[in-house]
Amino acid sequence: MTSISPSQVIEQLQWRYATKQFDSSKKIDDATWSAIEDSLVLTPSSFGMQPWKFFVVTDDAVRQQLLEHSWKQAQVVDASHVVVLAMKKDVDDAEVDRYINYSASVQGIPAENLEGFGKVIKGFLGNPKFDVNEWAAKQVYIAIGQLMATAAMLGVDACPMEGFVPPKYDEILGLDKLGYGSVLVCPLGYRHADDKYATQAKVRYPKAEMVQHLP
Amino acid sequence: MTSISPSQVIEQLQWRYATKQFDSSKKIDDATWSAIEDSLVLTPSSFGMQPWKFFVVTDDAVRQQLLEHSWKQAQVVDASHVVVLAMKKDVDDAEVDRYINYSASVQGIPAENLEGFGKVIKGFLGNPKFDVNEWAAKQVYIAIGQLMATAAMLGVDACPMEGFVPPKYDEILGLDKLGYGSVLVCPLGYRHADDKYATQAKVRYPKAEMVQHLP
Repeated sequence: MTSISPSQVIEQLQWRYATKQFDSSKKIDDATWSAIEDSLVLTPSSFGMQPWKFFVVTDDAVRQQLLEHSWKQAQVVDASHVVVLAMKKDVDDAEVDRYINYSASVQGIPAENLEGFGKVIKGFLGNPKFDVNEWAAKQVYIAIGQLMATAAMLGVDACPMEGFVPPKYDEILGLDKLGYGSVLVCPLGYRHADDKYATQAKVRYPKAEMVQHLP
Repeated sequence: MTSISPSQVIEQLQWRYATKQFDSSKKIDDATWSAIEDSLVLTPSSFGMQPWKFFVVTDDAVRQQLLEHSWKQAQVVDASHVVVLAMKKDVDDAEVDRYINYSASVQGIPAENLEGFGKVIKGFLGNPKFDVNEWAAKQVYIAIGQLMATAAMLGVDACPMEGFVPPKYDEILGLDKLGYGSVLVCPLGYRHADDKYATQAKVRYPKAEMVQHLP
């Protein structure tokens, strides 16, 4: 295990910014793209349930359709790749069972050994006061956090987007029929030389204010 | 800018796991911890608003108190560092103004230049159908995603936790009086040699299932 130095990690995170203008001639190569997909799959989640799916949109005509519901953000057509990060809707006991059975098979143990764990999850998600779709949506935010950091490490530009119309995306991409709902969108690729946002000072409140040591 | 290779990024993400048992004798050094704090501060957020604060808890007695409200997860006492990731509550127009003024000062431009941007944010957050606290909580999930990925790159172990009692944490740490609410907890440090979870097979659904190419 060869970890990365603190200075290099921070240099990469400083380098990233929400890219407003992508160079549409530059494409992410296969090895790099594959790592981005691996990173999405490896994202940690509540109980390890992975209540999500990541849709990669490549077709130009479809991307043009999405643009109409993306607050005019041309990144969805100009970027090399576009990922729609979607939550799995209405996660229920059957989904927990599927997860438990899958976990047991991966770990090479009888599913009975994980029965207690399954009950804990069902108790948590099945609480009548608990909104399972809010929970799933929040998990998708973990995925975008890991995605942004990963892309930065790889030197890939990205633009995390909340500004789009989820029901329209779901309709155009057919996500509703699959039981998923779009939560976030992320175009990825390489910044255009003309993107003036690339050189703007990064706006972050001071560390001394944002990180407070207690007591 | 020297980015990191796809294979090294994935190696680090494969290495990480939700650490159940920390070696309490191993402490994160200052340079590495400073990078972790920088990474938190650099997390992207909706409109760049950063509706959060990160509290670092070092005192052993306080950590013991937290343990009682942490579903018996001893990580909160054994880990080198504990971060409580909190959202800023009830973000309002005054907070937007503060952000706009701060942004203008960082970028060296008159605040008037950002007036339109401020109006867009106020319109978005002030929509009566919009739950500003849910929005802020979701942003905190981006921070934990970036934190998990960053820690993995640095070779630091971590355990993202939703399993704790936020009102009790807020009370013990005095967050409510500061206008913040705890959303997630993350002990960080180094895995104990006895933690059997370290060598367990990682449970992730297959990439072909989780990443779907459209159309």
